[in-house]
Amino acid sequence: MTHPSLDVLAIGDAIVDVIATAEDSFLTEEGLPKGSMRLIDAAEAKRLYGRMSQARETSGGSAANTMAGIAAMGGRAGFIGQVAKDQLGEIFAHDIRALGVEYRTPPIATDEPTGRCLILVTPDGQRTMNTFAGASHQLSAKALDAEQIRSAAILYLEAYLWVPDGPRAAMLEAIRIARSAGGKVAVTLSDIACIAKRRDSLLKLIADGSVDLLFANEMEIMALSDESDPDSALAAFADRVPLLVVTCSERGAIALERGRRVAVPAEWVDKVVDTTGAGDLFAAGFLFGQAQGRSLEDSLRLGSLAAAEIISHFGARPEADLRKLVA
Amino acid sequence: MTHPSLDVLAIGDAIVDVIATAEDSFLTEEGLPKGSMRLIDAAEAKRLYGRMSQARETSGGSAANTMAGIAAMGGRAGFIGQVAKDQLGEIFAHDIRALGVEYRTPPIATDEPTGRCLILVTPDGQRTMNTFAGASHQLSAKALDAEQIRSAAILYLEAYLWVPDGPRAAMLEAIRIARSAGGKVAVTLSDIACIAKRRDSLLKLIADGSVDLLFANEMEIMALSDESDPDSALAAFADRVPLLVVTCSERGAIALERGRRVAVPAEWVDKVVDTTGAGDLFAAGFLFGQAQGRSLEDSLRLGSLAAAEIISHFGARPEADLRKLVA
Repeated sequence: MTHPSLDVLAIGDAIVDVIATAEDSFLTEEGLPKGSMRLIDAAEAKRLYGRMSQARETSGGSAANTMAGIAAMGGRAGFIGQVAKDQLGEIFAHDIRALGVEYRTPPIATDEPTGRCLILVTPDGQRTMNTFAGASHQLSAKALDAEQIRSAAILYLEAYLWVPDGPRAAMLEAIRIARSAGGKVAVTLSDIACIAKRRDSLLKLIADGSVDLLFANEMEIMALSDESDPDSALAAFADRVPLLVVTCSERGAIALERGRRVAVPAEWVDKVVDTTGAGDLFAAGFLFGQAQGRSLEDSLRLGSLAAAEIISHFGARPEADLRKLVA
Repeated sequence: MTHPSLDVLAIGDAIVDVIATAEDSFLTEEGLPKGSMRLIDAAEAKRLYGRMSQARETSGGSAANTMAGIAAMGGRAGFIGQVAKDQLGEIFAHDIRALGVEYRTPPIATDEPTGRCLILVTPDGQRTMNTFAGASHQLSAKALDAEQIRSAAILYLEAYLWVPDGPRAAMLEAIRIARSAGGKVAVTLSDIACIAKRRDSLLKLIADGSVDLLFANEMEIMALSDESDPDSALAAFADRVPLLVVTCSERGAIALERGRRVAVPAEWVDKVVDTTGAGDLFAAGFLFGQAQGRSLEDSLRLGSLAAAEIISHFGARPEADLRKLVA
């Protein structure tokens, strides 16, 4: 790869968020731990939706949100993810392309509709997610565009999609193509609930030297390392990935690169409205900074700024002009 | 009707709003007068959507927004409007029912998808609407539930739906049922662009004594009366409808009832984010006040408060707890 045309190309869930406010008592009634993410089937999605208050729909998907953020900052981003031939699929494709993200995955006709994430936002701004993956988990290696993968400096993968066989096979094939073209591979651990089923295969991927950049929050890196405190967890991976970036909620973020540790505080936010997408946009800011050749510290700071913007309003796609924020 | 079970039952467009921000230059390029509403076909909806920035989807429809507002204030509201058997139709039905509005119109399988309104919001908060009516204009008298109509104290009709033959026939039949049961009929003129094609039939409806309460803004009442100043327009209708309510944007609102004129100023709003739904929610507040037996002045004030809430955020459905606002 002599001159990449994309800064980052992501593979992830192609999902529309259905965002409703909910009281804490609703989470209790439903037995949902606040801040959690779970996968649900079509029947449960229908039942839960029927109990939710009026909602707003915005395009989502973790890695897709990250690409949206990079594009909104002026970076060159691409996305691979599967939607169905339906109205939610049209919404997803429209929104990501409208931001300038290169999105070529054709919609498929399947029994599964486009995936959606039923998000309950409590008065404290915390989000609790119920994901009906739908067509998103029908992604297969057939949907990959090898030329597009070779055109990207970084291939970015979300662990959410690491469990279904088809998407994982697609990701492994994409890693092979990317590495053979000299591209780097970044992985986000996505969610604590993802780790258990994915731990062995993710550790193998890391041991193989296939992961150049690992994103996690403290809980996730502790689960992956099987360490019970964050410092030990970070130490466990410091030598196993060239660059490790860990977010610590309101305490900021840390980067570890070949023995060097850089930390930045979180940005101040007047009112946290909806935390959905905070990690996704943090990754966007960091990746954009790296693509621009900025320092680790600057990249972390861009991540914190982008995360602060996203939690100050409903929805996980940027609303402010992120180019100004970058400047 | 001895004891109505609904305060207000509305017939209107069943539509999902697709809301995107746009620069003034975009309106100029598209030749769209700011603040206007136009009907577009499927091809134009596809073309314009392709040029719009990322959007958020929220349920809309003028009279449907009004019913949502009444329900959010604690009133008993019902809605009749046509959606298709598709994902946007499911979203519309979910949202209006989640607010407690009685909505029984079954979705229909047609070539027309559920209607949508492509809304461009400029930095000044003004909205410019492009409505693809879709299945909404397939409403027919068959969809009416006579028992539901007889159960309502007020039947509320939007002029938007007064032009297609099927919906107008349905509205005329609903008026007949409502009046024979002792219910009152309220009509909103909806939009200045609606008046030309609807003027004669609306004037006939008024002349027949079928309209107990008429909602309009200054431009609309001037267009309907063919008068060139607001005062003459109001005077022209003062004796022709028992109750006339006219909104004057940031200058407040006026009610004229049998020679009595009451005016209230508009509520102060820190920042106008999106004016979509201002008129709809004004009508909600006024109708709720009347249903509660409040004075004209109090009813106007409730209308102003509800309108102020809706223009302080994106979307035309209330986000704040309107019961507190009413108290």
